[in-house]
Amino acid sequence: MKVAIVGASGETGQSIVNALLSSSTPKFPGRQLVSADLRGPIAPLITLLQGIDIVISAIHFDALADEIPLADAAKAAGVKRFVQSALMIIIPPRGVVDFREKVRPRKKKKGENLHYIQKLRLPYTYIDAGWWHQLSLPRLPSGRVDHLLPPAAQHDGFPLGRDGNVPTALADLRDVGRYVARIIADPRTLNRRVHVYNEVYTLNRVCEVVERVSGEKLERRYVSEVEARDAVDKARMRLAHSPGDTGALLAHVAAQLFYSWGIRGDNTPENAEYLGYLSGKDLYPDFEYVSFEEYIREVLRGEVKGVYQST
Amino acid sequence: MKVAIVGASGETGQSIVNALLSSSTPKFPGRQLVSADLRGPIAPLITLLQGIDIVISAIHFDALADEIPLADAAKAAGVKRFVQSALMIIIPPRGVVDFREKVRPRKKKKGENLHYIQKLRLPYTYIDAGWWHQLSLPRLPSGRVDHLLPPAAQHDGFPLGRDGNVPTALADLRDVGRYVARIIADPRTLNRRVHVYNEVYTLNRVCEVVERVSGEKLERRYVSEVEARDAVDKARMRLAHSPGDTGALLAHVAAQLFYSWGIRGDNTPENAEYLGYLSGKDLYPDFEYVSFEEYIREVLRGEVKGVYQST
Repeated sequence: MKVAIVGASGETGQSIVNALLSSSTPKFPGRQLVSADLRGPIAPLITLLQGIDIVISAIHFDALADEIPLADAAKAAGVKRFVQSALMIIIPPRGVVDFREKVRPRKKKKGENLHYIQKLRLPYTYIDAGWWHQLSLPRLPSGRVDHLLPPAAQHDGFPLGRDGNVPTALADLRDVGRYVARIIADPRTLNRRVHVYNEVYTLNRVCEVVERVSGEKLERRYVSEVEARDAVDKARMRLAHSPGDTGALLAHVAAQLFYSWGIRGDNTPENAEYLGYLSGKDLYPDFEYVSFEEYIREVLRGEVKGVYQST
Repeated sequence: MKVAIVGASGETGQSIVNALLSSSTPKFPGRQLVSADLRGPIAPLITLLQGIDIVISAIHFDALADEIPLADAAKAAGVKRFVQSALMIIIPPRGVVDFREKVRPRKKKKGENLHYIQKLRLPYTYIDAGWWHQLSLPRLPSGRVDHLLPPAAQHDGFPLGRDGNVPTALADLRDVGRYVARIIADPRTLNRRVHVYNEVYTLNRVCEVVERVSGEKLERRYVSEVEARDAVDKARMRLAHSPGDTGALLAHVAAQLFYSWGIRGDNTPENAEYLGYLSGKDLYPDFEYVSFEEYIREVLRGEVKGVYQST
């Protein structure tokens, strides 16, 4: 099975590459790094994808429009499965989180990339995964996990949506690639949406586990629906004023995602089932994952890396 | 089980009402006609839907925006299943046929109504059915079926896409309501898309059957991809010049639908499976339907009515 991964150097891309290279079933023979210009002519892309069975797009969300020429090339090259780069939490298909309703700049039309793929009738799998452990780590008062936190995180306490009891599906980033390796070798997931996650937690339970394991007391900040919606509105206005500003884009995405999983409670297995996803729990009941508590123990033993950190 | 049907006087609505009233399992006790203003305040709508188990929207495609307040009211009233008014052929979710990507006028946002419903987390079933026998009837040279044809049909021969060998799923309009009656009483179809159809035909086979049964020779008109696309473009321009013109809207929808099922071949069970629909053939293998050949025999015996005919 020959697999091409686009965005292999990103956080999700690395998890997938690691999983494929260490997979025992199926076997992936080795790796080769090639460069490609998704914004250039399509002919070289088609040539590059000749003989490739599976294309996995792990493109960063601010470049999702590049999936359109990638899908065109995959269709022309006869790729057997196109794994689109959702690999995110469960959100409603429209109206809550904007970035998936990406503009397709060449055709000046909006719409989810999956819908473009479906118009092509390109065989696909659409995977969403739980919210990463690596993004659920609260700041500890001692400062001993500060080096693992994304740069802008939690200056004024760990934010909990509503009363902290909103459930959300979690996954360890290292497991995401391992799920992907199972899914792409599985005929049941062809032309399907699949939801994979490790455990369902509330943020109150996140705090309880972290406090118990660390022995430290966390600073909680409860965020109401109105506050979360205000944060989305402010971020939207900031982005409207400076559309090219990556920081403004990230802030808007982060505010919308928090509103979705932290306030609305969209990121649950029940909602995934409602939206028509297959469940990784049904497909792979034997899957051994890193629990959130294990992850926190690894953090405190200094055994793990942070995410989204410049080196 | 209490069912509310919106658009009960339309072609599909009548089929559904007839099927529910003659259904043996489940039983529907009787009928009551009420009037409601979908463009007025929402409170009376909510009151009207109190105690209703299932809402079926058979709204005409030029009023799809009215499904948004209907869905809001259904959610507020605790309706257990909202059947959205697709009840049409299988089309890609975006980019081929415009009318399902309806503007939501109040919020000035575009998007399929189903996506709005999914944001509400309103329990739903989305049903698509085959292209009606009643719309697949060719004009006969003798003129003896002219009274059954829609007013504008086939002045210059029966149009066949490409070489006439594009497959398309057919259904008899009278069976559509009977499928709906089965589906809404079936827990397997909750929060799912379902595709129901009778048989898969090419238009060449349509002509062969009609010629064999009628003994008349049909006038075929083969339509190339370029011609069909030109027809869509012309209809789009006409609609752009007179956006309020119902005739222009109908012509645009008809051209886009023909391009989808007649040229692209979107309306097949294989494409429905690809897009994630459950199949009525799997769900109801015992369903007894009117075959296309039976329908043609009924037509020639003068036993059936036409559709979309002013009385």
